[in-house]
Amino acid sequence: MLIIGERINTVKKKIALAVERRDAETIQEEAINQVKAGIDVLDVNAGSSLNEAENMRWAVEIIQEVVNIPLCIDSANPEAIKAGFQVCRDKERAWANSITLQKKRIEDMLPLVKKYDCPLIALCIDDKGIPPTARERVEVAQRLIRVVGDFGISLDNLYIDCLIEPISVGEGKVQQTLATIKMMKNNFSQIKTVICLSGVSFGLPERRLINRTFLPLLIEAGVDAIFLDPLDEALMATLKAVNALLDKDESCLDYIRAYREGKLKV
Amino acid sequence: MLIIGERINTVKKKIALAVERRDAETIQEEAINQVKAGIDVLDVNAGSSLNEAENMRWAVEIIQEVVNIPLCIDSANPEAIKAGFQVCRDKERAWANSITLQKKRIEDMLPLVKKYDCPLIALCIDDKGIPPTARERVEVAQRLIRVVGDFGISLDNLYIDCLIEPISVGEGKVQQTLATIKMMKNNFSQIKTVICLSGVSFGLPERRLINRTFLPLLIEAGVDAIFLDPLDEALMATLKAVNALLDKDESCLDYIRAYREGKLKV
Repeated sequence: MLIIGERINTVKKKIALAVERRDAETIQEEAINQVKAGIDVLDVNAGSSLNEAENMRWAVEIIQEVVNIPLCIDSANPEAIKAGFQVCRDKERAWANSITLQKKRIEDMLPLVKKYDCPLIALCIDDKGIPPTARERVEVAQRLIRVVGDFGISLDNLYIDCLIEPISVGEGKVQQTLATIKMMKNNFSQIKTVICLSGVSFGLPERRLINRTFLPLLIEAGVDAIFLDPLDEALMATLKAVNALLDKDESCLDYIRAYREGKLKV
Repeated sequence: MLIIGERINTVKKKIALAVERRDAETIQEEAINQVKAGIDVLDVNAGSSLNEAENMRWAVEIIQEVVNIPLCIDSANPEAIKAGFQVCRDKERAWANSITLQKKRIEDMLPLVKKYDCPLIALCIDDKGIPPTARERVEVAQRLIRVVGDFGISLDNLYIDCLIEPISVGEGKVQQTLATIKMMKNNFSQIKTVICLSGVSFGLPERRLINRTFLPLLIEAGVDAIFLDPLDEALMATLKAVNALLDKDESCLDYIRAYREGKLKV
């Protein structure tokens, strides 16, 4: 299971300000700290302003000065993703995040993904928004898979975001997401799944408690990659425990090492 | 899902000493604190000494002086369970814990359970010990169900302990337990399931972290009752989060109440 560090995202005021002011130090510190915390991929989201492409270019460049890790170039705007890839040192390891079934995003993004043979995140979203049930999400996923496959892109590189809606807005949110992940595994064993963990807790207090309680359920369901905050120590300790519980940590060695390093005391 | 408070158990040195010395205050304090923490049933285990029946009688009597809650009379020795029931004020609400497929335990216990029409815990254990796979555990459960049903006991009162072995002793322990719970639900919808949470973490450091990470998986699998330590605040906060995540807490009201009462900050 891959961990994608989510902290460099302009939905956070601190990051938005740092991007706006070209405060490289703040962004670089976030990159370094997340890599130290043990992520596999570093997400880079530079906002939705008119200058988004320029912001993304700047962010990717200054991040590459301090860390060497696959970047996840994150935008709803294909121009910003292209700008990020242009300056990205290691384009084959970078991720394109994301497409939906929206025609413009697909047409703009797929040539780039094909060219670099890089991982691509596709959200289970069509014109009507987020499908409420697992069955409908898997139907949207099936259409995404067809479009991507027909374009000649390797399906091994495709990560389907199965989506999580906040539990504060209604019932069944977690069940539909877990069911989507499991149905994806059963129906399309080649395709990988991804989830943004913290979406589940929006609108509730003590969001980190909700997030880390959701984590074991996602991993047990078989998710392949998770966007999360790797500086949340209780969450990372929970991840060690999940791996020990679900045989993803042989003889619990990594768990015991983390204990000795004082990382489980949170 | 029912919470059974596990703390009054002579495997704990403090409790064993208190029982031996007839230190009522210590035992009563444990009972009161667990009831305050919000349990549904209070387990009472008075050890395995020659005086076990007498110990159990004493423990049940002094506990009843301070709390009014269903007791779970817990012993491998049917004589101790009988002694506990003899002095138990509310025999219909008390639980008999436990039987296995062992003939002597069955013959001694079933008349008592039938007489009081009370809940009974049956462990998925036969002569060969703990069956390693879910399939074998469900086969043992099936034999237990037949024996109990043939005796004329209502199956609504039967809780099958699906068993959890420590993850420190080998692989597949959690998966087999979760699979057992799910298979029990599918095959015998009338029968309830129970798990002793802390068995999972034996032999590892930071056991509470392992225990609370296991909790969401058990509840999602559909377990009906869990033995746990209700004074573990991080565990109880996790329980609130699980209930919110899995629609067992309408509009997250209980979660938000717990937050306002400062119970989620752990």
